[in-house]
Amino acid sequence: MTDFLKTLGAAAEDVNLTLERMLEMHDDPEAPLIEAMRYSVLDGGKRIRPFLTVAAADLFNVDKKRSLRVAAAIEMVHCYSLVHDDLPAMDDDELRRGQPTCHVKFGEATAILAGDALLTKAFEVLADDKTHTDPHVRSDLVLALARAAGPEGMVGGQMLDLIAEEGDLNMPEITRLQRMKTGMLIAVSCEAGAILGKATDGARHALHAYAHDLGLAFQIADDLLDVEGDEKTVGKKTGKDEEAGKATFVSLLGVKRAREQARLLVDQACEHLDLFGEKGDSLKNMAEFVINRQA
Amino acid sequence: MTDFLKTLGAAAEDVNLTLERMLEMHDDPEAPLIEAMRYSVLDGGKRIRPFLTVAAADLFNVDKKRSLRVAAAIEMVHCYSLVHDDLPAMDDDELRRGQPTCHVKFGEATAILAGDALLTKAFEVLADDKTHTDPHVRSDLVLALARAAGPEGMVGGQMLDLIAEEGDLNMPEITRLQRMKTGMLIAVSCEAGAILGKATDGARHALHAYAHDLGLAFQIADDLLDVEGDEKTVGKKTGKDEEAGKATFVSLLGVKRAREQARLLVDQACEHLDLFGEKGDSLKNMAEFVINRQA
Repeated sequence: MTDFLKTLGAAAEDVNLTLERMLEMHDDPEAPLIEAMRYSVLDGGKRIRPFLTVAAADLFNVDKKRSLRVAAAIEMVHCYSLVHDDLPAMDDDELRRGQPTCHVKFGEATAILAGDALLTKAFEVLADDKTHTDPHVRSDLVLALARAAGPEGMVGGQMLDLIAEEGDLNMPEITRLQRMKTGMLIAVSCEAGAILGKATDGARHALHAYAHDLGLAFQIADDLLDVEGDEKTVGKKTGKDEEAGKATFVSLLGVKRAREQARLLVDQACEHLDLFGEKGDSLKNMAEFVINRQA
Repeated sequence: MTDFLKTLGAAAEDVNLTLERMLEMHDDPEAPLIEAMRYSVLDGGKRIRPFLTVAAADLFNVDKKRSLRVAAAIEMVHCYSLVHDDLPAMDDDELRRGQPTCHVKFGEATAILAGDALLTKAFEVLADDKTHTDPHVRSDLVLALARAAGPEGMVGGQMLDLIAEEGDLNMPEITRLQRMKTGMLIAVSCEAGAILGKATDGARHALHAYAHDLGLAFQIADDLLDVEGDEKTVGKKTGKDEEAGKATFVSLLGVKRAREQARLLVDQACEHLDLFGEKGDSLKNMAEFVINRQA
């Protein structure tokens, strides 16, 4: 595990540098917008999604400069969703990764715009020919990310989450909610590697299946952290779901069965990678990490 | 002018139908999100940007099905920016096109998400091969729209607008603000037609120059409406800029010189279209409309 933490840390460094270069500060009067974007996207985080993109692209020997650009774009989308999710009208969170949330630091209006700007910038990055010389690849990346992040994906999941606060959801409903809210962005993080690598349908489906199981395991682990995690280690408020009376995997299954379910999903996820042989180890390690992390 | 109003109305009908088909209602529990998207994007509006896209594409005999898809995508971006701009943390507007704004109707959280979803959906539409079979065209459309709408374009302009409320801007600063906030989306609406039509550099530059002048004329006309317009006809609160002590073209130039400047810009805009001969009349009529409209 320690070795994997080093690998993960090194990958995070790479993506941070890429993001830093994409969002350079300047002297123009609108600079506070760039500052708020940088604040929201450069403040650490484990960079799980970027890791998935780069590791999946590595399976097909994609040039790292390319996979890092795509990884950075997906991370921008992830971070924009956090900025908007934290807003007073949404989850009203004041702490994220142990730091004041974007709207606490820069004000609500700037936070709304910083989120909008990160989302837009992500598509600019993907459509730029620096990302890939083949326009088919660029266009496919845009389409896949837009679908995963849009009303049938992440944003739709956030809407379900709002509605869920008002009523009890059952297991299939929670699963659908989580698949849309977090699963699809995790899935596209892997799939993007396959698109960059012009993978065969078989390889692409295997990655998709891996990511699907991983996404659910990730969410169960998240729910467990909300119940069992230490606020200081987790870096954000815990016990929120129970306080809000929200149905989660843990509230529906109980801690023990939820943990077993996560384990099962991770094993299943890893099996999908068998066709890649040893090359798949990196993604397998990530799956283990996802359910063992403390934050 | 009456003939042009008919043409504009017919084009608006076409784009409304296209938008309607792209945002079909369904029974899934997240349906309120789609409802809020539809509310924000289907409630009329003059559809100036879609008109520009279709008219510019017509110069190159682009299939109308294609130009309408791109026009719809650009209108989604325009409407998302209105939804977010109207939020309490931003302009705090309760009325838009004579109707309650999205957050008044659906609540703030849903309005934030509906804006996010419209922005994301726009890129999905552009990257879909229904928009164009050539991935180069699709990828170019995404890149152009993302640049026009992102931190160096529209969102950057909205940030400048926030900052402008705190201090006096001079003429070059206002021009830059307006160019970013509204001009670049208007420019890309025209440019998209050229991209779809694989136009020569010369034609593309001519359209860009036309759109640049048109965008400024449009904004001056908007400022004039805020000063002189009737709230009922305009469909939103007027006199807002003066109330907020905001520097505008009108506050800097006075009504008379602002009107002259708009006239000059429209004449200049139309000259750029001369190379298209009679085919350019439709865009020329639009330029006249922009400074003569009452709403």
